[in-house]
Amino acid sequence: MIWKFRSEFEKMTTTDGKIRIGLSMRYLGYHMAAWRHPDVPAAGAIDFNYFLRTAKKAEEAKLDMIFFADGIGVRANDTPKGSLARDAKNAELEPLTLLAAIGACTSHIGLVATASTTYNEPFHIARKYASIDHISGGRAGWNVVTSWSQQEAWNFSRDEHLGYEERYERADEFVEVVRKLWDSWEDDAFIRDKASGVFYDETMLHVPNHKGKHFKVRGPLNSARTPQGRPIIVQAGAAEAGRELAARYADVVYSNAGSMEGAKVYYDDLKGRLAKYGRTPDQLLIMPGVTLYVGKTRGEAQDKFDQLQNLIDPLSGMAILYGVLGDLSEYDLDGPVPDVGNQRVRSIAENLLALAHRENLTIRQMYKRVASGNNWQIVGTAQDIVDELERWFRAGAADGFNICPATLPQGVDDLTQYILPELRKRGLFRTEYEASTLRGNLGLQPLHFGD
Amino acid sequence: MIWKFRSEFEKMTTTDGKIRIGLSMRYLGYHMAAWRHPDVPAAGAIDFNYFLRTAKKAEEAKLDMIFFADGIGVRANDTPKGSLARDAKNAELEPLTLLAAIGACTSHIGLVATASTTYNEPFHIARKYASIDHISGGRAGWNVVTSWSQQEAWNFSRDEHLGYEERYERADEFVEVVRKLWDSWEDDAFIRDKASGVFYDETMLHVPNHKGKHFKVRGPLNSARTPQGRPIIVQAGAAEAGRELAARYADVVYSNAGSMEGAKVYYDDLKGRLAKYGRTPDQLLIMPGVTLYVGKTRGEAQDKFDQLQNLIDPLSGMAILYGVLGDLSEYDLDGPVPDVGNQRVRSIAENLLALAHRENLTIRQMYKRVASGNNWQIVGTAQDIVDELERWFRAGAADGFNICPATLPQGVDDLTQYILPELRKRGLFRTEYEASTLRGNLGLQPLHFGD
Repeated sequence: MIWKFRSEFEKMTTTDGKIRIGLSMRYLGYHMAAWRHPDVPAAGAIDFNYFLRTAKKAEEAKLDMIFFADGIGVRANDTPKGSLARDAKNAELEPLTLLAAIGACTSHIGLVATASTTYNEPFHIARKYASIDHISGGRAGWNVVTSWSQQEAWNFSRDEHLGYEERYERADEFVEVVRKLWDSWEDDAFIRDKASGVFYDETMLHVPNHKGKHFKVRGPLNSARTPQGRPIIVQAGAAEAGRELAARYADVVYSNAGSMEGAKVYYDDLKGRLAKYGRTPDQLLIMPGVTLYVGKTRGEAQDKFDQLQNLIDPLSGMAILYGVLGDLSEYDLDGPVPDVGNQRVRSIAENLLALAHRENLTIRQMYKRVASGNNWQIVGTAQDIVDELERWFRAGAADGFNICPATLPQGVDDLTQYILPELRKRGLFRTEYEASTLRGNLGLQPLHFGD
Repeated sequence: MIWKFRSEFEKMTTTDGKIRIGLSMRYLGYHMAAWRHPDVPAAGAIDFNYFLRTAKKAEEAKLDMIFFADGIGVRANDTPKGSLARDAKNAELEPLTLLAAIGACTSHIGLVATASTTYNEPFHIARKYASIDHISGGRAGWNVVTSWSQQEAWNFSRDEHLGYEERYERADEFVEVVRKLWDSWEDDAFIRDKASGVFYDETMLHVPNHKGKHFKVRGPLNSARTPQGRPIIVQAGAAEAGRELAARYADVVYSNAGSMEGAKVYYDDLKGRLAKYGRTPDQLLIMPGVTLYVGKTRGEAQDKFDQLQNLIDPLSGMAILYGVLGDLSEYDLDGPVPDVGNQRVRSIAENLLALAHRENLTIRQMYKRVASGNNWQIVGTAQDIVDELERWFRAGAADGFNICPATLPQGVDDLTQYILPELRKRGLFRTEYEASTLRGNLGLQPLHFGD
């Protein structure tokens, strides 16, 4: 396998030896107490100028892309009374309109947003991302998700959320249809010859006429082929069907990393799946998500982390334990975690309880641990952090990273002030954009019609 | 009926006696040969900067709003071979992403785009327009359409397009759900009190929990109430169900005018339907579409019109007759219209043939007539045109007009240079925006929660 050979020798897989960096920009940052931070504008998630300022900072920093996760509704299951009102994740801008608006006011940074294959139609999705690619001059990316919450089903006239297998089967055909629609017109199909009156070359129109199990879509798409050929496809395939979807279609994978060893196994597995789809390892970039707490000293970094952890409202903290351990409101917050367990997710409950007993955690300590434990995070100086990122990169566990800042816009300021100078000193990150398209900046090959 | 009383006395119905003006900006203008005009950028319909420049001109002119019609696909029925390749209406930007992008780069002009209730979900539509309203600071409007073409059905996994009655029944419930979603949160629901940790006031959240014939949508919308309270609703109800939908929900009606007498009958009928929905006549603005050909002299205006008419490609011209009169390609273009007729639309065919015989039209003259005959149009000097617009306005046949320029950006330049100065001289059009929201500039009352 070519990719293994390369990775053995070069210990890195991006074509130019540079690390790719994306910035996840949803809400006000990824820490659940971000909105309570004194420097965070609490109304930011519905304030376009907040997002635009942050995006412009990310572009000044020469990041590869900004990224918007999404859910189509307020996810509010299994929360104790009153806790939802303490959650900032109830109101936000819709990511495709937000992306288009940011695209109009920026020039180089990639623009990636999430859209669900379960609650959308391929024609709309193909059309909207094509439009954003045109508006931005070739910087659009679609993060393909299948959605996971019951609350979303209830917003779309369905009683039950689709099961995993059916969701991914639909997703696979959905992406196939979207790609066919993006390929409706060849690059030079539109002649627009005023003299002869011929607007397009009929031989360069390819009507998809798709007829599958889930979709019948005739097309063509009412859009010219886009500056990138096709917008970038991002995916976060973790389980089997998701990995196959990523291997078949994705340009970028946004992975959820635990340890470097686990990340490397994932990386090797996913890159190993590409060959059967006629693809090479350099056609897919794997970028784990990571949250960074950086300071001039380790102590300063730790203080930043602790400040946010201490801002977690107890009721919100109890809410994140609620789904697994049930209602703990009658117990002392600073007493030991009681030995209860919700039967529905007994395995998770048992793991949590074992951890609590092993480390003698109080309820408060427990929810803090869980609150910060979903994502990979590094607390330290710029050198500490870049050491770790470089280690992953050189080990072939990552082609880059999606930074999930604890708070915004501080997270991007921290990159500019601490992390990027250190990366650049080591020759691991760009000083200027190489291209005007996202595909170009990611170092992916230009896409020709028929590819 | 109050509105009749007012209209009898004041002979105009807008609250400030000013005419509202919108600019229809789809494609490159509304004349079918617009793209062949020497001054029109033929690639404009997929060029964001073309639209942005035009929108900025419209804002400098202080127009109420720009407006994007839309269809979800290439409508290509019943065209003779080769004619589609001469049609510029095959590729365009998607209107909601386009609207958001324009909104980010403008400050006062209203932003209206079309979305279909037949091929969308209420949650997506509520969310996207709410988002554009936030991004633009209160300038979003939704033109509600039910779609009419078989081609659109084929792009959305349906074999047949829905019938008129079912489409409008669905549309009615669709708009009802969207309004409920927009009303999920009261104006001041989001407290965001960092000290107490309370993000919103639970008593100000109203979960729609809609269960109807066509939709089950739980909500709430994951967006704060928008700057306008709710985005503006535009409708173009012509037949019975459409008029009822407009009377119940619309803030603006975009009507298709024939004669002033017909427009006045329509105007009176529609305003007369408002009372049963508890609304007053000043809550709905009726704005017929009109195409203007203006020059310093009548001759210059006529030359502008003739120039475009002569640019109609014969094959495209034959295409617009094809659906009614069938294939005329074997006849002499400059000979008389032959006595043929497509059985499917015999009544239209008979009307056309009667016209052709009465006026002794050639085939070329016939397609020119049909090409320019769908919309109301005025050819003349600024004084001629404003005389006519003022006559309609004072007669109570229109509260304003949607300008459907033959070509863009020339159409908006003509407004600025010729039409608006004449309207302003007569005190019939604003010199400065009165408000920062579309609702405010249209002179509609502020919307309070519960209205």
